[in-house]
Amino acid sequence: MTPFRTLKQEGQARRGRLTLAHGVVETPVFMPVGTYGAVKTATPEELVAAGSQIILGNTYHLYLRPGLEVLEKFGGLHRWMHWDLPLLTDSGGFQVFSLSQSRKITDEGAEFRSHLNGDKIFLTPELSAKIQQAIGSDIAMVLDECVALPNKTSVIEAAVKRSREWAERFLAVPRREGQNIFGINQGGTSLPLREQSLSATLELPLDGIAIGGLSVGETHREMVEVLEFLSPRLPIELPHYVMGIGTPLDLLEAVRNGIDMFDCVLPTRNARNGGFFTNEGLLNIRNSDFRLDAAPIQEGCDCPCCRHYSRAYLRHLFQIKEILGCRLATLHNLHYYHRFVAGMRNALEAGTFSHYYEEMRPRLAQAYPERENSNEVVSD
Amino acid sequence: MTPFRTLKQEGQARRGRLTLAHGVVETPVFMPVGTYGAVKTATPEELVAAGSQIILGNTYHLYLRPGLEVLEKFGGLHRWMHWDLPLLTDSGGFQVFSLSQSRKITDEGAEFRSHLNGDKIFLTPELSAKIQQAIGSDIAMVLDECVALPNKTSVIEAAVKRSREWAERFLAVPRREGQNIFGINQGGTSLPLREQSLSATLELPLDGIAIGGLSVGETHREMVEVLEFLSPRLPIELPHYVMGIGTPLDLLEAVRNGIDMFDCVLPTRNARNGGFFTNEGLLNIRNSDFRLDAAPIQEGCDCPCCRHYSRAYLRHLFQIKEILGCRLATLHNLHYYHRFVAGMRNALEAGTFSHYYEEMRPRLAQAYPERENSNEVVSD
Repeated sequence: MTPFRTLKQEGQARRGRLTLAHGVVETPVFMPVGTYGAVKTATPEELVAAGSQIILGNTYHLYLRPGLEVLEKFGGLHRWMHWDLPLLTDSGGFQVFSLSQSRKITDEGAEFRSHLNGDKIFLTPELSAKIQQAIGSDIAMVLDECVALPNKTSVIEAAVKRSREWAERFLAVPRREGQNIFGINQGGTSLPLREQSLSATLELPLDGIAIGGLSVGETHREMVEVLEFLSPRLPIELPHYVMGIGTPLDLLEAVRNGIDMFDCVLPTRNARNGGFFTNEGLLNIRNSDFRLDAAPIQEGCDCPCCRHYSRAYLRHLFQIKEILGCRLATLHNLHYYHRFVAGMRNALEAGTFSHYYEEMRPRLAQAYPERENSNEVVSD
Repeated sequence: MTPFRTLKQEGQARRGRLTLAHGVVETPVFMPVGTYGAVKTATPEELVAAGSQIILGNTYHLYLRPGLEVLEKFGGLHRWMHWDLPLLTDSGGFQVFSLSQSRKITDEGAEFRSHLNGDKIFLTPELSAKIQQAIGSDIAMVLDECVALPNKTSVIEAAVKRSREWAERFLAVPRREGQNIFGINQGGTSLPLREQSLSATLELPLDGIAIGGLSVGETHREMVEVLEFLSPRLPIELPHYVMGIGTPLDLLEAVRNGIDMFDCVLPTRNARNGGFFTNEGLLNIRNSDFRLDAAPIQEGCDCPCCRHYSRAYLRHLFQIKEILGCRLATLHNLHYYHRFVAGMRNALEAGTFSHYYEEMRPRLAQAYPERENSNEVVSD
């Protein structure tokens, strides 16, 4: 039975609720990335205060460190990292694609070298399932093959076929009690391949459906085309998750297209480089314009950073390379993302999302101009 | 009028209270070091929760960054860094001694080069007073000349004489309202010079007396000898402050010798290197022994780090170079120091300090063996 319930619908967009072993998640929801069992710089208490309901852990990274023995001894990642709320894990497939220099992918699995020490790793659907069971995530993702975009149709087609086979093998592993398993749609920017992947994936008994292989080199427009194409084809009873996006504009378009969940390192990674999300765009606090600026990052923002600190002080913290600067920026950016998504939830509840969308789209398009084509997201 | 009141006395040791513009400080008190207007990794709220009552800012560093213009615009460091409690600033003299490669000290002042960009700086008593006024500290320190130990008597003597002259010039600057000014005793390990410096310094109208020039190369035993010699000679109505110490054992000896205040980077600096203070000594969390250790750093410790995290997880955070590890270690170490000093306050209140001292001394001497001779403390 799917853990998801739609509370309200407007066009394709939905306001929903995901009931998981570690708690209830109100959707649409943004999931911060906690690669190695920590959302960088932040405590779980701070994440909750910022509005986090569920976070993401990276299977590949956690397999390397701390490794299966430690995760098993501690009964999973929740207790290990002192996080009591829901947790989603990716499958490791994206890291095979993004982190590994030399990899050999066969039908059996992906052979590649650890980015830490060069050790050979052979990641199969069965191993990915085993690691995610040791992690004890509320939502596990099937192992998929992700390819860079643009790419040859034959390459994308082969990845679609293999992802379907791997998903089936993944599901054949007896599951950990209470763990939900989501399938992954692939197909690059080819709409026929997206459709083919979707119908093949939906033959499987899944608790949710993810759209993978985006934010890997395509333009925002291409991404939206894929979402618009898939949107009416996604089963309404399943939760819909777009992996690895995105900018505030990406999230707005995703929600309009019926997406319930997204994760991205943008708020946390930008934070550590002094980039603060605001309604007017990304503010680079290192800019000398802010040297004497007594204003907060964003007027009216009630995050701990904006409540207590000036732009001038925050700039100073980044100038002296003080960790507190990265912390405050992380809190602000997560707060910004969560508040932005909460605003979409509110609009959906009020039945005013289409109005909200029309108003926000041009503002966000101006504040966050289309990103460069790049494989931007690796891990956080 | 001195801001200090003794509430209870046992031998030379005192339990006292310091009433300052930004609040009341219960003594003995440990002061965390916030070099550049931030105690590294920590928010003011966390400092207060850990037990901090007063923190130290470094005049030299703050003069370089953010600089006088910013400090003046923001009306001082308190508002700038969101710290509402008392603040003490050093004079910059110690940094002339410890940070500068090429310096030229004359009776007029100290000429040296910025450790950041090589700019020439000419620090005089008047400039030190001006910077500390711009910072708006509750307690300002007179500019003194600090020398390395061991050293020639003639060198130490000259520094004593010059420090006295500089103190007088410092006090001649009209003071900022509500700011207290402490004098500094120098004299190295020479007891006659310490006495000479003390009587000369005490001719001046001071709100407190500090012992400087320790923790600069002498042994623990030599330091204690200086404290034991000065202890009965310090005016009881003034607060007594030993600058730049120390280990838990140093603090115990200082309190026994009537010291009310100390500051040191040991808890915060060790934290960032994975060193955790415990009753059994400094625990290096990077040690592979802790890989599977589910225990907290210190059983019974109620700091946020020990309440929620295992040694194994903390080791993992340091392995992956995660900022959260430095944060949690900082919170634990500050909590440890503050709780240790609170224990001394409690013993003094109960009239059981000499018993407490006899019990703690051998334990601390074993847990924290005498430090290497080194100029250990520069800034944090």
